[in-house]
Amino acid sequence: MKPYVTLVGAGPGDPDLITLKGIKAIREADVILYDALVNEDLLEYAKPMCVKIYVGKRAERLSIKQENINQLMVDYALTHGHVVRLKGGDPFVFGRGGEEIDFVRGHGIETAVVPGISSSTGLTALQQIPLTYRGISESFWVITGSTKEGHLSEDLYSAVKTNATVVVLMGFARLNQIAELYRAHGKGDLPIALIQNGSLPNERIALGTVDTIEEQAENNLLGVPAIIILGEVVSRHREFNALVSNLNTELSTQHEVPGIYTHE
Amino acid sequence: MKPYVTLVGAGPGDPDLITLKGIKAIREADVILYDALVNEDLLEYAKPMCVKIYVGKRAERLSIKQENINQLMVDYALTHGHVVRLKGGDPFVFGRGGEEIDFVRGHGIETAVVPGISSSTGLTALQQIPLTYRGISESFWVITGSTKEGHLSEDLYSAVKTNATVVVLMGFARLNQIAELYRAHGKGDLPIALIQNGSLPNERIALGTVDTIEEQAENNLLGVPAIIILGEVVSRHREFNALVSNLNTELSTQHEVPGIYTHE
Repeated sequence: MKPYVTLVGAGPGDPDLITLKGIKAIREADVILYDALVNEDLLEYAKPMCVKIYVGKRAERLSIKQENINQLMVDYALTHGHVVRLKGGDPFVFGRGGEEIDFVRGHGIETAVVPGISSSTGLTALQQIPLTYRGISESFWVITGSTKEGHLSEDLYSAVKTNATVVVLMGFARLNQIAELYRAHGKGDLPIALIQNGSLPNERIALGTVDTIEEQAENNLLGVPAIIILGEVVSRHREFNALVSNLNTELSTQHEVPGIYTHE
Repeated sequence: MKPYVTLVGAGPGDPDLITLKGIKAIREADVILYDALVNEDLLEYAKPMCVKIYVGKRAERLSIKQENINQLMVDYALTHGHVVRLKGGDPFVFGRGGEEIDFVRGHGIETAVVPGISSSTGLTALQQIPLTYRGISESFWVITGSTKEGHLSEDLYSAVKTNATVVVLMGFARLNQIAELYRAHGKGDLPIALIQNGSLPNERIALGTVDTIEEQAENNLLGVPAIIILGEVVSRHREFNALVSNLNTELSTQHEVPGIYTHE
């Protein structure tokens, strides 16, 4: 038995949005430590004897501390062998994956990482919002809305001055501050989208401009956790023109690829 | 028969880095149009009757034009039904996926998108370079190194002034220009990584600082296509300290998750 820890990205919610490599890691795991945002359907790939432990910290009602998670990874690797740390989205797009890897390595245990679909690129793709577009956007910038210190990231103050498509994760609670910042830079007309519960049956979306998005969010009953996308590319959403002046938006069947669901 | 086009992200190279949703789309496809950077092993998921067409444009030796690809998607959707447009990485991280979707929709044909692992987040994760890290980086910015006009993206001139982790795709040919830009901003000491053929058996990596990376690239025989990662987080690579002063670097077995390959 060799102690080993693999960080695996579970994707944004839909259990079909994990990679094959991620599934194979789950199948081989002796222990799985999984987050609140991980779809529990994925645990069904595990072997019968696999130990599955929920280590979620949802909405700051902290049931388990980061230090405990770190220690659990090490302890289980030493006693059980292969630990899969199953994290929502991609392990290294926020979510403290870097710290987890460092802690495990600090105990002389080998590590691996299996990338996952980050909500930043995955949920926008499902909604058919291209993050980049020739002649419109040559880059995209993914920024946390929730810094350690509790204020808006300095990077947002830089981002507002560029033409980059900006994706803010964990920023919905500060939507009004972000809108304020963009308005202060004369960008009240910039297209913006919010996606809540992306890739899941209860997905909700709001489209608008910086000036109208708070009202749209209210009309569409959006709440946490939602990602924010700011940039001209948002206007390429097929329903942008219709929706910016519209209210209720249920998009639950939007991502169906024909045949996929009917054949199963 | 309903005409339909699905853009599917094939991931960065390793065929196990496609999502389950992507595999299901390939299984249902009547026609697959695939790029040069797509791993052809993925075509084995297709039904026997599926028409598979290579539409790659490798290294600018243009065998097929973008307009032709667009027209093929439409023509095959109308004559065969479900067309899967299989693209390397993620369909909307560069690669003109937005234009393809628009063209198809312009012909009244429905579209869907299945996200893929972008090399920007996926290859860094495999190399265990965290794009974000508490106290080091609150964001990452993905920029094309190859603009329509043929010069460095304006966004890079903004990015160099920030603390964002910067990932440049399709920028290896302009590595010296990029290093020059960073040096001009007093960032000669900034850690930087290059990853070529990421996730494949012939993967190569070079680690260094902006000042040393061109020499490291030469020593490690790196070439196109390679992605560039600039930022303090690069120093978290487990071999950073050893490798910045070292030469040959073969990392072909780096991404193995224990048990995965031995059990098959």
